[in-house]
Amino acid sequence: MTEHPFDQAIALAQSDIRAGQFTGATSPHYWNMVGPFGGTTAAVVLQSVLDHPDLLGLPIALTVNYAAALVAGPFEVLAIPVRTNRSTQHWTIQITQPDDGGAPQVNTTATVVTAARRETWGTNDLPMPSVPRPGEVARFSSGPAGVAWMGQYEMRPVSGVIPGTWDGSGDRSESIVWLRDAVPRALDFASLACLSDMFYPRIWLRRAKHVPAGTVSITTYFHAGVAELESVGTGYLLGRAVGQQFHNGFFDQSAQLWSEAGALLATSNQIVYFKE
Amino acid sequence: MTEHPFDQAIALAQSDIRAGQFTGATSPHYWNMVGPFGGTTAAVVLQSVLDHPDLLGLPIALTVNYAAALVAGPFEVLAIPVRTNRSTQHWTIQITQPDDGGAPQVNTTATVVTAARRETWGTNDLPMPSVPRPGEVARFSSGPAGVAWMGQYEMRPVSGVIPGTWDGSGDRSESIVWLRDAVPRALDFASLACLSDMFYPRIWLRRAKHVPAGTVSITTYFHAGVAELESVGTGYLLGRAVGQQFHNGFFDQSAQLWSEAGALLATSNQIVYFKE
Repeated sequence: MTEHPFDQAIALAQSDIRAGQFTGATSPHYWNMVGPFGGTTAAVVLQSVLDHPDLLGLPIALTVNYAAALVAGPFEVLAIPVRTNRSTQHWTIQITQPDDGGAPQVNTTATVVTAARRETWGTNDLPMPSVPRPGEVARFSSGPAGVAWMGQYEMRPVSGVIPGTWDGSGDRSESIVWLRDAVPRALDFASLACLSDMFYPRIWLRRAKHVPAGTVSITTYFHAGVAELESVGTGYLLGRAVGQQFHNGFFDQSAQLWSEAGALLATSNQIVYFKE
Repeated sequence: MTEHPFDQAIALAQSDIRAGQFTGATSPHYWNMVGPFGGTTAAVVLQSVLDHPDLLGLPIALTVNYAAALVAGPFEVLAIPVRTNRSTQHWTIQITQPDDGGAPQVNTTATVVTAARRETWGTNDLPMPSVPRPGEVARFSSGPAGVAWMGQYEMRPVSGVIPGTWDGSGDRSESIVWLRDAVPRALDFASLACLSDMFYPRIWLRRAKHVPAGTVSITTYFHAGVAELESVGTGYLLGRAVGQQFHNGFFDQSAQLWSEAGALLATSNQIVYFKE
């Protein structure tokens, strides 16, 4: 069996595991315009924690700061469990690549919280929007040229598709879309982290204007255990993203990912740089 | 003039500034039940960046992970600008206190992004709720015993006040409240960071049940420059917080802070541990 392109993109080798060091390489299959798709970078960060022999529990929170675009090629990941409590664990992670002189340069900083989950009371105060089923929604097939990662996903937009013409006519910033891997792959924490960064910059929709924009920092909270992920399997997730405040070069967008059955699996927020 | 208690709580001395090391001390005036109020810890993190001589620009994003409660007394803050670009700067921050044997133990990990802001197009897609003016809302004066920090704030709850009886009758998790320092102090980035963590755990409201709960990680995005903060001065902010997903020991809550004039100054999200 051929390895799934996502598994290939996030594969890490333990270069010095006592020191928390891993090596990986960017994947052409998840390339974005000027570097790897940020979702895969977030997934690589999380995977380093999941691969670490000292891991306690399951992912709860992930923050990834995109300090600079990764260049095509190998990278190093350093994942350190800086504090381990009885039921929670706090991680700091950095990704580096060598500069022209060979000195390591940080391009990504991150923190992760993992925890042992216990069964408790629970409820969802952010119910899934009422939308047509995936089979009733047409598949989106016209990603822009040079954006390989979009081809790795089956996207069925319910509303808020990328504007077809940049005519400045936008008046809202919400998108709702059914999502899953184009090549079937069972949902896990790494792919959930990746999917959290799936939503194109809200400013493009809000203004119907194609300004330069890029995520600066993303935070994702995981609301699922292994059983909840397994019950999704290779099924669809419903994603929703909306812009909040756009001010002097930065805006934030909020996102949610539900299972097709309506379980809220992840909530995510990001702040995005933009020009003009 | 006596120093404001908040300035006292976040005051840092440069112990070794070339190495990014600062020292501070917890404040009894902002004590919470088992440690300092998390809002002041977030403010201390941000203040170390603001005090650093290599700082570029203004705060854009702040993530603080509460790895362990600080104990009363002195602490060390280590703030490192790990990557400085033309217009953005990426920081990692840790707070440590010595353990019984004197070895430094990390109790807080954090990342900050700062940036030079440029004037751009902007809009607010998350308008301030329509509520009575602060003067028309009664002041909340009955914080629980042992929670000193609440006395430092003037809070005028519009809706979603802490339940007076824990009778399990809750059915929603939204609070809206007018806020400002009890002793007048002009708004700055540190106090805005602190105010972002002002909202009590949503689970107490949602269930009208007083279960053990504590913030594990908070992320705040700043949507203001110096001029926007100055125009608030010592005025009120309107805060809103709401729970999202409650699942097996953790829930997340989303918060916004508007100026009285309706400018969205900060958006914040946190994930909170709870029992039962």
